[in-house]
Amino acid sequence: MATITIIGTGLIGSSMGMALRKNGHFIIGCDKSTENLEHAKRIGAIDISSKYTKEIVEKSEVVILATPVDTIEYILPKLLDDIATDTTVIDTGSTKLSICKTVHNHSKRRNLVASHPMAGSEKSGSSGASSNLFENKKVVICESGLSSGKSLQTALNLFKELQMQPIFLSPQEHDSMVGLVSHIPQLIAYAFASMRELNQAKNDGWEDIASNGFESVSRLGLSSPDVWLPILLQNKENLIKNLRSLNQNIELIMSSLSKNDTDTLRSIMKKAVSARSRFNFSKNQLNKSNELTLQLK
Amino acid sequence: MATITIIGTGLIGSSMGMALRKNGHFIIGCDKSTENLEHAKRIGAIDISSKYTKEIVEKSEVVILATPVDTIEYILPKLLDDIATDTTVIDTGSTKLSICKTVHNHSKRRNLVASHPMAGSEKSGSSGASSNLFENKKVVICESGLSSGKSLQTALNLFKELQMQPIFLSPQEHDSMVGLVSHIPQLIAYAFASMRELNQAKNDGWEDIASNGFESVSRLGLSSPDVWLPILLQNKENLIKNLRSLNQNIELIMSSLSKNDTDTLRSIMKKAVSARSRFNFSKNQLNKSNELTLQLK
Repeated sequence: MATITIIGTGLIGSSMGMALRKNGHFIIGCDKSTENLEHAKRIGAIDISSKYTKEIVEKSEVVILATPVDTIEYILPKLLDDIATDTTVIDTGSTKLSICKTVHNHSKRRNLVASHPMAGSEKSGSSGASSNLFENKKVVICESGLSSGKSLQTALNLFKELQMQPIFLSPQEHDSMVGLVSHIPQLIAYAFASMRELNQAKNDGWEDIASNGFESVSRLGLSSPDVWLPILLQNKENLIKNLRSLNQNIELIMSSLSKNDTDTLRSIMKKAVSARSRFNFSKNQLNKSNELTLQLK
Repeated sequence: MATITIIGTGLIGSSMGMALRKNGHFIIGCDKSTENLEHAKRIGAIDISSKYTKEIVEKSEVVILATPVDTIEYILPKLLDDIATDTTVIDTGSTKLSICKTVHNHSKRRNLVASHPMAGSEKSGSSGASSNLFENKKVVICESGLSSGKSLQTALNLFKELQMQPIFLSPQEHDSMVGLVSHIPQLIAYAFASMRELNQAKNDGWEDIASNGFESVSRLGLSSPDVWLPILLQNKENLIKNLRSLNQNIELIMSSLSKNDTDTLRSIMKKAVSARSRFNFSKNQLNKSNELTLQLK
């Protein structure tokens, strides 16, 4: 059992803490929000809370850095300075290229395992945390060749405890793929939910008629700007390219609707059905359902 | 207990059949797809299947018309010709203006209750049907003043059996609001899931890293083109206006990202969070969870 410091006890940090603490690890939590820290302690995500000090991270076998990505970039070089030579650092940032570049030439780069657990929710802070958030999900590990064998093994063991499967990608591949399947859905939800027509509804109670489809497409519009703004900025090249392509599809839909061009519309729909059918979420669905069932009991 | 003919035993028709049959009504199913009809019978959505004949609808106390909306427009005038003077017709079309116009001057317009149950799923056909699809959902009723008191009462009683709450709107209000909260999410999912980048993925198995966010925003991209194409065309004026506004938001996000304009990005995100927070889906979530639990047993 290890002493693990988690810096950033939000949704990801607290969920990791809950799962790892159940397995007997000793978890120290650091967060600039005392509210988050107190809540993290109350829900059993951490054993004790502490200010960040060199001594604490030096004496930890593992430090998990789970703050927003701009803060990861800011803290990471100093953190690598402060740790002992055999401490493993795992960052959980949703972008990888910019973070990896920041510490590429750091003398303790080999202590870092650059990671991205592919799990989340529209909730933020420790109040949304859940010990099974990561079960059967993937975790992307970037530039594994720059991590020491010991650090990589330590990180893989922890991800195994969280029941995650590792995928090894370059930071460029990660940012491009994750931009498309995670950051773009996030931006779509923000773009949709911020439409002035949704804010200018005339009839009282008309929100009632929104059903599953609306719920599904707009849910991520509830996500925290503090978490997402730095992610989107760090991955903006990929995102702008993807948004341009999305806009072209929307323009094509508009012109086809206006011309009653059913062939083009049907071809867009068929492409969507075919692409979406390649993604299989049955496992995730099952997990979600188990989770909900437990909540109902 | 009534004799009810359901024309169109797809997702909506079969789900209604399952729920109403449980309550003891005698359900006759008509569908051009024998596969749908046979499946509807197997899952207990209908008592018997039949070809459409004047005799059958004449002898039914209620006829529910649940085909795609272009077929509703095509069948409805003839159906009103064929029914008895005291038969109630309920159409379930996802558009209302065009359908209501088609039969505005029909001598039996008063037998029709123009309805739209606000429930659905990305699945189509009777194989996606569920007897609790409508529980705690809204049903929009349009031009209720043009329905006879008896027809309206019959329809309201049936919707009460399905545990739906009625909302009364004009066809214009309906198409405008439903365009925004149902048809636009549908188009967004099609536009996203049909992006060439999703179809041209280079790495095998990269679909694995897609998680809840992707699943949520793209799910409706699996929906049937046969059902959705006629809906989108009938409501195209509203949809083109909304898509233009959505595209403006996406353009603004792109230019703000490219200029690192964090103020504008944060303001878009805050608008989204605030608008989305007005929608409360806790009840729906609970239902969905119950449904999944039942499927697991």
